[in-house]
Amino acid sequence: MNLSNKRKPSNDQVSELTTNRLSVYLRCLNQLESAGVDTISSQALAEQFHLNAAQIRKDLAYFGEFGVRGVGYYVKDLKRHLRHILGLDRKLRVAVMGAGNLGLALADYPGFRREGFEIVALFDIADAKIGDESRGGVPILDIKELKRLVRKEHVDIVVIAVPAESAQPVLDQVVAAGVRAVLNFSPGTLKVPPGVRLRNVDLTVSLESLSFYLAQGDVGPD
Amino acid sequence: MNLSNKRKPSNDQVSELTTNRLSVYLRCLNQLESAGVDTISSQALAEQFHLNAAQIRKDLAYFGEFGVRGVGYYVKDLKRHLRHILGLDRKLRVAVMGAGNLGLALADYPGFRREGFEIVALFDIADAKIGDESRGGVPILDIKELKRLVRKEHVDIVVIAVPAESAQPVLDQVVAAGVRAVLNFSPGTLKVPPGVRLRNVDLTVSLESLSFYLAQGDVGPD
Repeated sequence: MNLSNKRKPSNDQVSELTTNRLSVYLRCLNQLESAGVDTISSQALAEQFHLNAAQIRKDLAYFGEFGVRGVGYYVKDLKRHLRHILGLDRKLRVAVMGAGNLGLALADYPGFRREGFEIVALFDIADAKIGDESRGGVPILDIKELKRLVRKEHVDIVVIAVPAESAQPVLDQVVAAGVRAVLNFSPGTLKVPPGVRLRNVDLTVSLESLSFYLAQGDVGPD
Repeated sequence: MNLSNKRKPSNDQVSELTTNRLSVYLRCLNQLESAGVDTISSQALAEQFHLNAAQIRKDLAYFGEFGVRGVGYYVKDLKRHLRHILGLDRKLRVAVMGAGNLGLALADYPGFRREGFEIVALFDIADAKIGDESRGGVPILDIKELKRLVRKEHVDIVVIAVPAESAQPVLDQVVAAGVRAVLNFSPGTLKVPPGVRLRNVDLTVSLESLSFYLAQGDVGPD
């Protein structure tokens, strides 16, 4: 019944959970490199960062032979491989739809720039906002300029940060402009045509993880 | 060498990745329930939502015997169990530190309320903001009021959405006020004393998942 082991999935089937884990491994390797660690075993990596060693080996084995018998992984090498697998060895250009609080916060989010993503523009429909810019200097453009800007600036990824009721029409405009990868922060289910990859971010997941911790009652009284 | 199977971890060691998966399963069950599905096998759950069936069985088996031989899981029952495990069967009260773009966006984030989290207040140090409220009506209070409010309103979880350079001093105030669970959106490494659970949210992970998709080149030309 172990279908998943017999049928090697295409890249299209590599799940969001898997790529999220690769991102987590990359964060761990960054920390190890900063701490001067040269090599690490999957077991030590798992113990240090509360991960699952078997899962680490399985995830990495899918993309190639990175481990060295008796040594484990070379931190610098594995980090380079992961950055390559995740497509982070080139600059990716991002536009944000919606210059409300969330859009403005995302446009200036320091982590995006640090990992090589470049936020080229915010888009809105409100005349009062168009022509202005975020605190970090990202220009706010008229959504009518979207198609032109996507071509001119080679936008790779669009982030949707508009109210729920506008999310689908805005997404349709994004797809019509030729964008093939969309990160959605709006609630509700959105539809994209085949060939366009949509990722939904649910910030509630992190709160639920804390809720779990509180519910288990392993917090002593004050 | 399969240590993780022999040594059953304490609740404290249930990793963030595991609780995140439980949250994902809960989302899937919500969708199945809306679609009128009564029972589902781990295999079908995995195929429908691009998950790993063995992982689902392992994650759930850790918390109890939820599957029924020949049937799979009862959707409603499993959902109720997961909500209980995640501590979502009671109202959790949340305060947000920092009434900038990110803090305001998080205070009004629709998903939090939907899952039973109640945002009771925003805190800031800027006189111009104190006394005002978010678009959704969450009051912005002086950070000096934090300790009093945490006790009076029984705040369970605090969200940190302040600039990186203020994050540690603000977190120290939060801990001093008696809060034991913190969700941090600021970049950089923060320290908490034992007994306080800190979760760091890195929004870059979702962008990297799209980067992976683009890098694999399985997007056909226009």
